[in-house]
Amino acid sequence: MKPIGVFDSGVGGLTVVAALRQCLPKESILYLGDTARLPYGTKSASTVQRYTERNLKFLSSRGVKAVVVACNTASALALPHLRFDHPTWGVVEPGAEWAAKMTRNDRIGVIATESTVRSDAYGEALRRWRPEAAVFSHACPLFVPLVEEGWLDGEVVEAVARRYLEPLRRAEVDTVVLGCTHYPMLKPILQRVLGDEVHLADSAQIVAQKVSQGLAAADLLEPTAEGLVQTCLTDAGESFARLARQILGDLPSEPEWVDV
Amino acid sequence: MKPIGVFDSGVGGLTVVAALRQCLPKESILYLGDTARLPYGTKSASTVQRYTERNLKFLSSRGVKAVVVACNTASALALPHLRFDHPTWGVVEPGAEWAAKMTRNDRIGVIATESTVRSDAYGEALRRWRPEAAVFSHACPLFVPLVEEGWLDGEVVEAVARRYLEPLRRAEVDTVVLGCTHYPMLKPILQRVLGDEVHLADSAQIVAQKVSQGLAAADLLEPTAEGLVQTCLTDAGESFARLARQILGDLPSEPEWVDV
Repeated sequence: MKPIGVFDSGVGGLTVVAALRQCLPKESILYLGDTARLPYGTKSASTVQRYTERNLKFLSSRGVKAVVVACNTASALALPHLRFDHPTWGVVEPGAEWAAKMTRNDRIGVIATESTVRSDAYGEALRRWRPEAAVFSHACPLFVPLVEEGWLDGEVVEAVARRYLEPLRRAEVDTVVLGCTHYPMLKPILQRVLGDEVHLADSAQIVAQKVSQGLAAADLLEPTAEGLVQTCLTDAGESFARLARQILGDLPSEPEWVDV
Repeated sequence: MKPIGVFDSGVGGLTVVAALRQCLPKESILYLGDTARLPYGTKSASTVQRYTERNLKFLSSRGVKAVVVACNTASALALPHLRFDHPTWGVVEPGAEWAAKMTRNDRIGVIATESTVRSDAYGEALRRWRPEAAVFSHACPLFVPLVEEGWLDGEVVEAVARRYLEPLRRAEVDTVVLGCTHYPMLKPILQRVLGDEVHLADSAQIVAQKVSQGLAAADLLEPTAEGLVQTCLTDAGESFARLARQILGDLPSEPEWVDV
Protein backbone atom coordinates (compact mmCIF):
# COMPACT_ATOMS: atom_id res chain seq x y z
CA MET A 1 0.00 0.00 0.00
CA LYS A 2 2.28 2.75 -1.21
CA PRO A 3 1.15 6.31 -0.45
CA ILE A 4 1.10 9.33 -2.73
CA GLY A 5 3.76 11.76 -1.50
CA VAL A 6 2.80 15.43 -1.33
CA PHE A 7 5.19 18.14 -0.27
CA ASP A 8 5.04 21.86 0.33
CA SER A 9 7.21 24.34 2.20
CA GLY A 10 4.48 24.55 4.82
CA VAL A 11 0.79 24.10 5.33
CA GLY A 12 -0.55 25.49 2.02
CA GLY A 13 -0.10 22.20 0.16
CA LEU A 14 -2.88 20.74 2.25
CA THR A 15 -5.29 22.50 -0.13
CA VAL A 16 -4.00 19.97 -2.69
CA VAL A 17 -4.39 17.13 -0.17
CA ALA A 18 -8.01 18.17 0.37
CA ALA A 19 -8.64 18.03 -3.39
CA LEU A 20 -6.85 14.65 -3.69
CA ARG A 21 -9.04 13.23 -0.92
CA GLN A 22 -12.14 14.25 -2.84
CA CYS A 23 -10.89 12.67 -6.09
CA LEU A 24 -9.19 9.63 -4.59
CA PRO A 25 -10.72 8.99 -1.15
CA LYS A 26 -9.14 5.52 -0.87
CA GLU A 27 -5.54 6.52 -1.58
CA SER A 28 -3.10 6.99 1.29
CA ILE A 29 -1.16 10.24 1.39
CA LEU A 30 2.18 11.05 2.99
CA TYR A 31 2.46 14.82 3.42
CA LEU A 32 5.79 16.53 4.05
CA GLY A 33 5.77 20.18 5.17
CA ASP A 34 9.27 21.70 5.21
CA THR A 35 8.21 24.07 7.98
CA ALA A 36 11.76 24.51 9.32
CA ARG A 37 12.82 26.29 6.14
CA LEU A 38 9.64 28.00 5.00
CA PRO A 39 8.95 30.25 3.21
CA TYR A 40 10.49 29.21 -0.12
CA GLY A 41 8.94 32.11 -2.00
CA THR A 42 11.54 34.71 -1.00
CA LYS A 43 14.55 32.46 -1.62
CA SER A 44 16.87 31.85 -4.55
CA ALA A 45 16.48 29.11 -7.14
CA SER A 46 19.55 27.19 -5.95
CA THR A 47 18.33 27.10 -2.34
CA VAL A 48 14.82 26.03 -3.38
CA GLN A 49 16.34 23.31 -5.60
CA ARG A 50 18.53 22.03 -2.76
CA TYR A 51 15.61 21.78 -0.34
CA THR A 52 13.27 20.26 -2.94
CA GLU A 53 15.82 17.58 -3.74
CA ARG A 54 16.14 16.67 -0.05
CA ASN A 55 12.36 16.54 0.34
CA LEU A 56 11.93 14.24 -2.67
CA LYS A 57 14.70 11.98 -1.36
CA PHE A 58 12.89 11.78 1.98
CA LEU A 59 9.55 10.90 0.37
CA SER A 60 11.30 8.31 -1.76
CA SER A 61 12.88 6.75 1.35
CA ARG A 62 9.37 6.39 2.77
CA GLY A 63 8.25 4.36 -0.24
CA VAL A 64 5.87 6.70 -2.05
CA LYS A 65 4.65 5.63 -5.49
CA ALA A 66 4.21 9.14 -6.88
CA VAL A 67 4.85 12.71 -5.78
CA VAL A 68 2.92 15.95 -6.00
CA VAL A 69 5.06 19.04 -5.54
CA ALA A 70 2.25 21.10 -4.03
CA CYS A 71 4.38 24.21 -3.68
CA ASN A 72 4.29 26.69 -6.53
CA THR A 73 7.77 28.04 -5.83
CA ALA A 74 9.32 24.54 -5.83
CA SER A 75 7.27 23.60 -8.92
CA ALA A 76 8.47 26.72 -10.74
CA LEU A 77 12.12 26.79 -9.66
CA ALA A 78 13.14 23.21 -8.88
CA LEU A 79 10.92 20.72 -10.69
CA PRO A 80 12.20 21.40 -14.25
CA HIS A 81 15.76 20.67 -13.08
CA LEU A 82 15.17 17.49 -11.11
CA ARG A 83 15.11 13.84 -12.06
CA PHE A 84 12.94 11.57 -9.99
CA ASP A 85 12.15 7.88 -10.28
CA HIS A 86 8.41 8.17 -9.64
CA PRO A 87 5.59 9.92 -11.49
CA THR A 88 5.75 13.55 -10.38
CA TRP A 89 3.33 16.45 -10.76
CA GLY A 90 3.88 20.11 -10.04
CA VAL A 91 1.17 22.74 -9.64
CA VAL A 92 2.31 25.28 -12.24
CA GLU A 93 1.47 23.40 -15.45
CA PRO A 94 -2.07 22.36 -14.45
CA GLY A 95 -2.89 25.82 -13.08
CA ALA A 96 -1.64 27.46 -16.28
CA GLU A 97 -3.58 25.01 -18.47
CA TRP A 98 -6.78 25.71 -16.56
CA ALA A 99 -6.35 29.50 -16.75
CA ALA A 100 -5.49 29.34 -20.46
CA LYS A 101 -8.73 27.46 -21.13
CA MET A 102 -10.75 29.82 -18.96
CA THR A 103 -9.80 33.22 -20.34
CA ARG A 104 -12.09 34.88 -22.88
CA ASN A 105 -10.22 38.16 -23.41
CA ASP A 106 -6.66 36.69 -23.42
CA ARG A 107 -5.59 38.86 -20.49
CA ILE A 108 -4.42 36.66 -17.64
CA GLY A 109 -3.12 37.75 -14.24
CA VAL A 110 -0.75 35.70 -12.08
CA ILE A 111 -0.26 36.34 -8.37
CA ALA A 112 2.49 34.37 -6.65
CA THR A 113 5.58 34.62 -4.46
CA GLU A 114 8.54 36.77 -5.48
CA SER A 115 10.60 33.76 -6.59
CA THR A 116 7.79 32.26 -8.66
CA VAL A 117 7.12 35.59 -10.38
CA ARG A 118 10.83 36.14 -11.02
CA SER A 119 11.11 32.66 -12.63
CA ASP A 120 8.28 33.51 -15.10
CA ALA A 121 7.31 29.82 -14.98
CA TYR A 122 3.60 30.70 -15.21
CA GLY A 123 4.21 33.13 -18.06
CA GLU A 124 6.04 30.44 -20.04
CA ALA A 125 3.42 27.78 -19.34
CA LEU A 126 0.53 30.13 -20.17
CA ARG A 127 2.13 31.19 -23.45
CA ARG A 128 2.63 27.53 -24.41
CA TRP A 129 -1.12 26.94 -24.03
CA ARG A 130 -2.17 30.31 -25.43
CA PRO A 131 0.60 32.14 -27.29
CA GLU A 132 -1.66 35.13 -27.94
CA ALA A 133 -2.39 35.77 -24.25
CA ALA A 134 -1.00 38.79 -22.40
CA VAL A 135 0.23 37.74 -18.94
CA PHE A 136 0.46 40.18 -16.02
CA SER A 137 2.40 38.78 -13.05
CA HIS A 138 2.54 40.36 -9.61
CA ALA A 139 4.34 39.18 -6.47
CA CYS A 140 2.27 39.35 -3.27
CA PRO A 141 4.74 38.53 -0.48
CA LEU A 142 2.43 39.61 2.36
CA PHE A 143 -0.40 37.21 1.51
CA VAL A 144 1.37 34.16 2.99
CA PRO A 145 2.13 35.77 6.38
CA LEU A 146 -1.43 37.16 6.47
CA VAL A 147 -2.86 33.66 5.97
CA GLU A 148 -0.44 32.23 8.53
CA GLU A 149 -1.59 34.93 10.97
CA GLY A 150 -5.19 33.91 10.28
CA TRP A 151 -6.18 37.37 9.00
CA LEU A 152 -8.32 36.18 6.08
CA ASP A 153 -10.71 39.11 6.05
CA GLY A 154 -10.97 42.65 7.41
CA GLU A 155 -9.38 46.05 7.00
CA VAL A 156 -5.72 45.00 6.74
CA VAL A 157 -6.01 42.14 4.25
CA GLU A 158 -8.42 44.22 2.14
CA ALA A 159 -5.96 47.15 2.00
CA VAL A 160 -3.12 44.77 1.07
CA ALA A 161 -5.24 43.04 -1.58
CA ARG A 162 -6.33 46.38 -3.11
CA ARG A 163 -2.71 47.50 -3.34
CA TYR A 164 -1.39 44.24 -4.83
CA LEU A 165 -4.29 43.70 -7.23
CA GLU A 166 -4.57 47.26 -8.57
CA PRO A 167 -2.17 46.59 -11.52
CA LEU A 168 -4.25 43.51 -12.48
CA ARG A 169 -7.50 45.48 -12.30
CA ARG A 170 -6.01 48.20 -14.47
CA ALA A 171 -4.81 45.53 -16.93
CA GLU A 172 -8.44 44.30 -17.16
CA VAL A 173 -7.56 40.63 -16.78
CA ASP A 174 -10.53 38.26 -16.81
CA THR A 175 -8.67 35.34 -15.18
CA VAL A 176 -6.19 35.33 -12.29
CA VAL A 177 -3.99 32.34 -11.41
CA LEU A 178 -3.64 31.87 -7.64
CA GLY A 179 0.02 30.88 -7.94
CA CYS A 180 0.63 29.94 -4.32
CA THR A 181 -1.12 27.21 -2.35
CA HIS A 182 -1.89 29.65 0.47
CA TYR A 183 -3.94 31.97 -1.71
CA PRO A 184 -7.10 29.84 -2.05
CA MET A 185 -7.72 30.69 1.61
CA LEU A 186 -8.03 34.35 0.58
CA LYS A 187 -10.47 33.60 -2.27
CA PRO A 188 -13.46 35.56 -0.89
CA ILE A 189 -11.50 38.78 -0.42
CA LEU A 190 -9.63 38.38 -3.74
CA GLN A 191 -12.93 37.83 -5.54
CA ARG A 192 -14.44 40.91 -3.87
CA VAL A 193 -11.49 43.13 -4.81
CA LEU A 194 -11.16 41.80 -8.38
CA GLY A 195 -14.89 41.66 -9.05
CA ASP A 196 -17.24 38.70 -9.53
CA GLU A 197 -16.64 38.46 -13.26
CA VAL A 198 -12.96 37.53 -12.85
CA HIS A 199 -12.13 33.79 -12.77
CA LEU A 200 -9.77 32.67 -10.00
CA ALA A 201 -7.71 29.68 -11.13
CA ASP A 202 -6.67 27.58 -8.17
CA SER A 203 -4.55 24.55 -9.15
CA ALA A 204 -5.67 22.20 -6.37
CA GLN A 205 -8.71 20.67 -8.14
CA ILE A 206 -7.07 20.32 -11.52
CA VAL A 207 -3.87 18.84 -10.07
CA ALA A 208 -5.94 16.25 -8.22
CA GLN A 209 -7.65 15.30 -11.49
CA LYS A 210 -4.29 14.98 -13.29
CA VAL A 211 -2.92 12.78 -10.51
CA SER A 212 -6.03 10.63 -10.58
CA GLN A 213 -5.82 10.15 -14.37
CA GLY A 214 -2.05 9.60 -14.24
CA LEU A 215 -2.16 6.96 -11.53
CA ALA A 216 -5.01 5.14 -13.27
CA ALA A 217 -3.09 5.14 -16.57
CA ALA A 218 0.03 3.79 -14.84
CA ASP A 219 -2.06 1.20 -13.01
CA LEU A 220 -0.93 2.59 -9.67
CA LEU A 221 -4.32 3.08 -7.98
CA GLU A 222 -5.01 0.93 -4.94
CA PRO A 223 -8.75 0.61 -4.47
CA THR A 224 -8.29 -1.38 -1.28
CA ALA A 225 -6.21 1.27 0.50
CA GLU A 226 -7.64 2.98 3.55
CA GLY A 227 -7.25 6.64 2.65
CA LEU A 228 -4.91 7.44 5.52
CA VAL A 229 -3.21 10.83 5.59
CA GLN A 230 0.08 11.01 7.48
CA THR A 231 1.92 14.30 7.96
CA CYS A 232 5.65 14.84 8.49
CA LEU A 233 7.05 18.26 9.41
CA THR A 234 10.64 19.47 9.60
CA ASP A 235 9.69 21.85 12.42
CA ALA A 236 7.34 21.16 15.26
CA GLY A 237 5.58 24.54 15.00
CA GLU A 238 2.13 25.18 16.42
CA SER A 239 0.46 27.23 13.69
CA PHE A 240 0.46 24.17 11.40
CA ALA A 241 -2.25 22.36 13.35
CA ARG A 242 -4.54 25.43 13.42
CA LEU A 243 -4.30 26.01 9.66
CA ALA A 244 -4.46 22.28 8.87
CA ARG A 245 -7.79 22.07 10.66
CA GLN A 246 -9.06 25.08 8.71
CA ILE A 247 -8.07 23.51 5.36
CA LEU A 248 -8.85 19.82 5.92
CA GLY A 249 -11.63 20.10 8.47
CA ASP A 250 -9.64 17.74 10.66
CA LEU A 251 -6.01 16.95 11.41
CA PRO A 252 -5.54 13.39 10.13
CA SER A 253 -2.96 12.29 12.69
CA GLU A 254 -0.35 13.72 15.02
CA PRO A 255 2.43 15.11 12.74
CA GLU A 256 5.74 13.29 12.86
CA TRP A 257 8.83 15.45 13.30
CA VAL A 258 11.57 14.67 10.74
CA ASP A 259 15.02 16.13 10.13
CA VAL A 260 15.33 16.20 6.34
CA MET B 1 43.11 40.86 13.03
CA LYS B 2 40.20 38.77 14.27
CA PRO B 3 36.74 40.10 13.47
CA ILE B 4 33.69 40.35 15.71
CA GLY B 5 31.14 37.80 14.49
CA VAL B 6 27.53 38.97 14.26
CA PHE B 7 24.70 36.73 13.20
CA ASP B 8 21.00 37.07 12.55
CA SER B 9 18.43 35.03 10.68
CA GLY B 10 18.39 37.73 8.02
CA VAL B 11 19.07 41.39 7.47
CA GLY B 12 17.72 42.83 10.74
CA GLY B 13 20.95 42.22 12.65
CA LEU B 14 22.59 44.90 10.52
CA THR B 15 20.94 47.43 12.88
CA VAL B 16 23.36 46.04 15.48
CA VAL B 17 26.25 46.23 12.99
CA ALA B 18 25.41 49.90 12.39
CA ALA B 19 25.55 50.57 16.15
CA LEU B 20 28.82 48.60 16.49
CA ARG B 21 30.40 50.66 13.70
CA GLN B 22 29.53 53.85 15.59
CA CYS B 23 31.00 52.57 18.88
CA LEU B 24 33.95 50.66 17.43
CA PRO B 25 34.73 52.10 13.99
CA LYS B 26 38.11 50.33 13.76
CA GLU B 27 36.90 46.80 14.50
CA SER B 28 36.32 44.36 11.66
CA ILE B 29 32.97 42.60 11.56
CA LEU B 30 31.99 39.29 9.98
CA TYR B 31 28.21 39.20 9.51
CA LEU B 32 26.32 35.98 8.90
CA GLY B 33 22.69 36.18 7.73
CA ASP B 34 20.98 32.79 7.71
CA THR B 35 18.71 33.94 4.90
CA ALA B 36 18.09 30.40 3.59
CA ARG B 37 16.20 29.48 6.77
CA LEU B 38 14.66 32.78 7.86
CA PRO B 39 12.43 33.62 9.61
CA TYR B 40 13.35 32.06 12.96
CA GLY B 41 10.51 33.78 14.80
CA THR B 42 7.79 31.32 13.79
CA LYS B 43 9.85 28.21 14.47
CA SER B 44 10.29 25.90 17.44
CA ALA B 45 13.03 26.16 20.06
CA SER B 46 14.78 22.97 18.92
CA THR B 47 14.98 24.14 15.31
CA VAL B 48 16.24 27.60 16.31
CA GLN B 49 18.84 25.95 18.58
CA ARG B 50 20.02 23.66 15.80
CA TYR B 51 20.47 26.52 13.34
CA THR B 52 22.09 28.81 15.93
CA GLU B 53 24.61 26.11 16.80
CA ARG B 54 25.54 25.70 13.13
CA ASN B 55 25.89 29.45 12.69
CA LEU B 56 28.17 29.81 15.73
CA LYS B 57 30.28 26.91 14.48
CA PHE B 58 30.64 28.63 11.12
CA LEU B 59 31.69 31.95 12.69
CA SER B 60 34.16 30.09 14.89
CA SER B 61 35.65 28.37 11.83
CA ARG B 62 36.22 31.83 10.36
CA GLY B 63 38.28 32.88 13.38
CA VAL B 64 36.05 35.42 15.12
CA LYS B 65 37.16 36.63 18.57
CA ALA B 66 33.66 37.28 19.91
CA VAL B 67 30.07 36.83 18.78
CA VAL B 68 26.94 38.94 18.92
CA VAL B 69 23.74 36.97 18.44
CA ALA B 70 21.87 39.88 16.87
CA CYS B 71 18.64 37.91 16.50
CA ASN B 72 16.14 38.18 19.33
CA THR B 73 14.61 34.77 18.65
CA ALA B 74 18.01 33.02 18.72
CA SER B 75 19.02 35.06 21.78
CA ALA B 76 15.83 34.07 23.58
CA LEU B 77 15.56 30.40 22.56
CA ALA B 78 19.09 29.18 21.84
CA LEU B 79 21.68 31.29 23.65
CA PRO B 80 20.86 30.08 27.20
CA HIS B 81 21.43 26.48 26.09
CA LEU B 82 24.66 26.85 24.15
CA ARG B 83 28.29 26.72 25.15
CA PHE B 84 30.71 28.73 23.09
CA ASP B 85 34.43 29.32 23.43
CA HIS B 86 34.37 33.06 22.72
CA PRO B 87 32.76 35.99 24.51
CA THR B 88 29.13 36.05 23.36
CA TRP B 89 26.37 38.62 23.68
CA GLY B 90 22.70 38.27 22.94
CA VAL B 91 20.23 41.12 22.45
CA VAL B 92 17.59 40.16 25.02
CA GLU B 93 19.47 40.94 28.25
CA PRO B 94 20.73 44.39 27.21
CA GLY B 95 17.33 45.39 25.80
CA ALA B 96 15.59 44.29 28.98
CA GLU B 97 18.12 46.12 31.18
CA TRP B 98 17.62 49.33 29.22
CA ALA B 99 13.81 49.12 29.37
CA ALA B 100 13.87 48.30 33.10
CA LYS B 101 15.93 51.43 33.75
CA MET B 102 13.71 53.55 31.53
CA THR B 103 10.23 52.82 32.87
CA ARG B 104 8.67 55.22 35.37
CA ASN B 105 5.30 53.52 35.88
CA ASP B 106 6.57 49.91 35.95
CA ARG B 107 4.38 48.93 33.02
CA ILE B 108 6.55 47.58 30.20
CA GLY B 109 5.42 46.30 26.82
CA VAL B 110 7.37 43.79 24.72
CA ILE B 111 6.74 43.29 21.00
CA ALA B 112 8.57 40.41 19.33
CA THR B 113 8.17 37.31 17.18
CA GLU B 114 5.84 34.49 18.21
CA SER B 115 8.72 32.27 19.39
CA THR B 116 10.35 35.03 21.43
CA VAL B 117 7.05 35.91 23.11
CA ARG B 118 6.29 32.24 23.80
CA SER B 119 9.71 31.79 25.44
CA ASP B 120 9.00 34.69 27.87
CA ALA B 121 12.75 35.46 27.77
CA TYR B 122 12.07 39.20 27.94
CA GLY B 123 9.58 38.77 30.79
CA GLU B 124 12.14 36.83 32.80
CA ALA B 125 14.95 39.29 32.09
CA LEU B 126 12.76 42.33 32.87
CA ARG B 127 11.60 40.84 36.15
CA ARG B 128 15.20 40.15 37.17
CA TRP B 129 15.99 43.85 36.75
CA ARG B 130 12.67 45.10 38.09
CA PRO B 131 10.66 42.46 39.96
CA GLU B 132 7.80 44.91 40.56
CA ALA B 133 7.24 45.60 36.85
CA ALA B 134 4.17 44.35 34.99
CA VAL B 135 5.19 43.02 31.56
CA PHE B 136 2.77 42.89 28.61
CA SER B 137 4.10 40.83 25.67
CA HIS B 138 2.56 40.74 22.23
CA ALA B 139 3.67 38.83 19.12
CA CYS B 140 3.65 40.88 15.89
CA PRO B 141 4.36 38.32 13.13
CA LEU B 142 3.44 40.66 10.26
CA PHE B 143 5.98 43.36 11.12
CA VAL B 144 8.94 41.39 9.68
CA PRO B 145 7.33 40.69 6.29
CA LEU B 146 6.15 44.33 6.14
CA VAL B 147 9.72 45.56 6.66
CA GLU B 148 11.04 43.01 4.15
CA GLU B 149 8.42 44.29 1.67
CA GLY B 150 9.65 47.84 2.33
CA TRP B 151 6.23 49.05 3.56
CA LEU B 152 7.52 51.15 6.45
CA ASP B 153 4.72 53.69 6.42
CA GLY B 154 1.23 54.14 5.01
CA GLU B 155 -2.27 52.74 5.38
CA VAL B 156 -1.43 49.03 5.71
CA VAL B 157 1.40 49.20 8.23
CA GLU B 158 -0.56 51.75 10.29
CA ALA B 159 -3.61 49.45 10.43
CA VAL B 160 -1.41 46.49 11.42
CA ALA B 161 0.40 48.55 14.06
CA ARG B 162 -2.89 49.84 15.54
CA ARG B 163 -4.21 46.29 15.81
CA TYR B 164 -1.05 44.81 17.34
CA LEU B 165 -0.37 47.70 19.72
CA GLU B 166 -3.92 48.20 21.00
CA PRO B 167 -3.42 45.82 23.99
CA LEU B 168 -0.26 47.72 24.97
CA ARG B 169 -2.03 51.08 24.71
CA ARG B 170 -4.85 49.77 26.88
CA ALA B 171 -2.28 48.46 29.39
CA GLU B 172 -0.86 52.01 29.62
CA VAL B 173 2.76 50.93 29.26
CA ASP B 174 5.29 53.78 29.29
CA THR B 175 8.11 51.72 27.70
CA VAL B 176 8.03 49.20 24.86
CA VAL B 177 10.89 46.84 24.04
CA LEU B 178 11.40 46.41 20.28
CA GLY B 179 12.18 42.70 20.64
CA CYS B 180 13.12 41.98 17.03
CA THR B 181 15.97 43.55 15.08
CA HIS B 182 13.60 44.42 12.21
CA TYR B 183 11.38 46.63 14.36
CA PRO B 184 13.68 49.68 14.67
CA MET B 185 12.90 50.30 11.00
CA LEU B 186 9.26 50.83 11.99
CA LYS B 187 10.11 53.27 14.81
CA PRO B 188 8.35 56.34 13.34
CA ILE B 189 5.02 54.54 12.88
CA LEU B 190 5.27 52.70 16.23
CA GLN B 191 5.98 55.99 17.99
CA ARG B 192 3.02 57.64 16.28
CA VAL B 193 0.62 54.83 17.21
CA LEU B 194 1.88 54.46 20.80
CA GLY B 195 2.24 58.21 21.43
CA ASP B 196 5.30 60.39 21.90
CA GLU B 197 5.47 59.83 25.65
CA VAL B 198 6.20 56.10 25.30
CA HIS B 199 9.89 55.07 25.27
CA LEU B 200 10.92 52.61 22.54
CA ALA B 201 13.77 50.40 23.75
CA ASP B 202 15.85 49.22 20.82
CA SER B 203 18.74 46.93 21.86
CA ALA B 204 21.20 47.87 19.11
CA GLN B 205 22.86 50.84 20.85
CA ILE B 206 23.07 49.24 24.27
CA VAL B 207 24.39 45.93 22.86
CA ALA B 208 27.12 47.83 21.03
CA GLN B 209 28.13 49.52 24.29
CA LYS B 210 28.22 46.18 26.13
CA VAL B 211 30.39 44.66 23.40
CA SER B 212 32.71 47.65 23.46
CA GLN B 213 33.14 47.44 27.24
CA GLY B 214 33.48 43.64 27.20
CA LEU B 215 36.15 43.57 24.48
CA ALA B 216 38.10 46.34 26.22
CA ALA B 217 37.96 44.48 29.55
CA ALA B 218 39.15 41.25 27.87
CA ASP B 219 41.88 43.17 26.03
CA LEU B 220 40.45 42.08 22.69
CA LEU B 221 40.18 45.46 20.96
CA GLU B 222 42.41 45.98 17.95
CA PRO B 223 42.96 49.71 17.42
CA THR B 224 44.96 49.10 14.25
CA ALA B 225 42.21 47.14 12.47
CA GLU B 226 40.60 48.61 9.38
CA GLY B 227 36.92 48.46 10.24
CA LEU B 228 36.02 46.12 7.40
CA VAL B 229 32.55 44.61 7.30
CA GLN B 230 32.20 41.32 5.47
CA THR B 231 28.83 39.64 4.98
CA CYS B 232 28.07 35.96 4.48
CA LEU B 233 24.59 34.74 3.53
CA THR B 234 23.18 31.22 3.36
CA ASP B 235 20.89 32.27 0.51
CA ALA B 236 21.74 34.54 -2.35
CA GLY B 237 18.49 36.52 -2.15
CA GLU B 238 18.06 39.97 -3.62
CA SER B 239 16.07 41.78 -0.95
CA PHE B 240 19.09 41.63 1.38
CA ALA B 241 21.07 44.22 -0.58
CA ARG B 242 18.16 46.67 -0.71
CA LEU B 243 17.50 46.51 3.04
CA ALA B 244 21.22 46.46 3.88
CA ARG B 245 21.66 49.76 2.07
CA GLN B 246 18.70 51.22 3.97
CA ILE B 247 20.16 50.19 7.33
CA LEU B 248 23.89 50.75 6.81
CA GLY B 249 23.79 53.51 4.22
CA ASP B 250 26.08 51.36 2.08
CA LEU B 251 26.67 47.69 1.40
CA PRO B 252 30.18 47.05 2.72
CA SER B 253 31.17 44.36 0.22
CA GLU B 254 29.62 41.79 -2.10
CA PRO B 255 28.05 39.13 0.19
CA GLU B 256 29.68 35.72 0.14
CA TRP B 257 27.35 32.75 -0.29
CA VAL B 258 27.94 30.01 2.31
CA ASP B 259 26.26 26.65 2.94
CA VAL B 260 26.15 26.39 6.74
